[in-house]
Amino acid sequence: MNLNYSKLDGLVPAVVQDHASGRVLMLGFMNDEAFRRTVETGDVTFFSRSRSRLWVKGESSGHRLRVREIATDCDQDCVLVKVEALGPGVCHEGYASCFFRRLANGAWQETEPRVFDPAAVYGGTP
Amino acid sequence: MNLNYSKLDGLVPAVVQDHASGRVLMLGFMNDEAFRRTVETGDVTFFSRSRSRLWVKGESSGHRLRVREIATDCDQDCVLVKVEALGPGVCHEGYASCFFRRLANGAWQETEPRVFDPAAVYGGTP
Repeated sequence: MNLNYSKLDGLVPAVVQDHASGRVLMLGFMNDEAFRRTVETGDVTFFSRSRSRLWVKGESSGHRLRVREIATDCDQDCVLVKVEALGPGVCHEGYASCFFRRLANGAWQETEPRVFDPAAVYGGTP
Repeated sequence: MNLNYSKLDGLVPAVVQDHASGRVLMLGFMNDEAFRRTVETGDVTFFSRSRSRLWVKGESSGHRLRVREIATDCDQDCVLVKVEALGPGVCHEGYASCFFRRLANGAWQETEPRVFDPAAVYGGTP
């Protein structure tokens, strides 16, 4: 189950998609250890570039992403993880998906309401 | 319609999703010029890291990706492009989606047949 981490300094992009609705929820990055932990534990685990450490998605919010299926692409330099998302939303700003802004008339417009209060979930650090 | 290109040396990952089926078809990278051309022309345009130039997806195969909707994420460092895919498949290896391998029992397994002959489409350079 090797992947090609060489194109992105040891990382691969990981696209997270809701297994039931097909909605793309977020994109993170994995190094080899994060990928292997994701496979072994069934909880999506990223490598946080800003914190330079492994990051089990939902470790603070409880909104874990349970793996249903993992695919890779032709070049094996990217993964697509289909998940069951625990909790109301994956976005640290309180939305169901991180992709809550759509391009309309040359500007980004929010297209949906928040589904949870990020201050309550993340302790005031949205 | 600004994006944050600073985290990835001037690029953002661009997830391409079929607007009708919801299938994730591929992931590429865009620099600011590629993103702006994508918006202006309606044809998905990447920045090819291997060739260091703009790459209109389908420029050689004819399998262009027509933009239906563009979303960005909370950090504005990634885009999700919903498309109508012209042609039978987006993958240079002849598959409908680049994500044609799934993890099963610790190994990558092909999960679907080719939908076109890459040698015929790409002139012997699959």
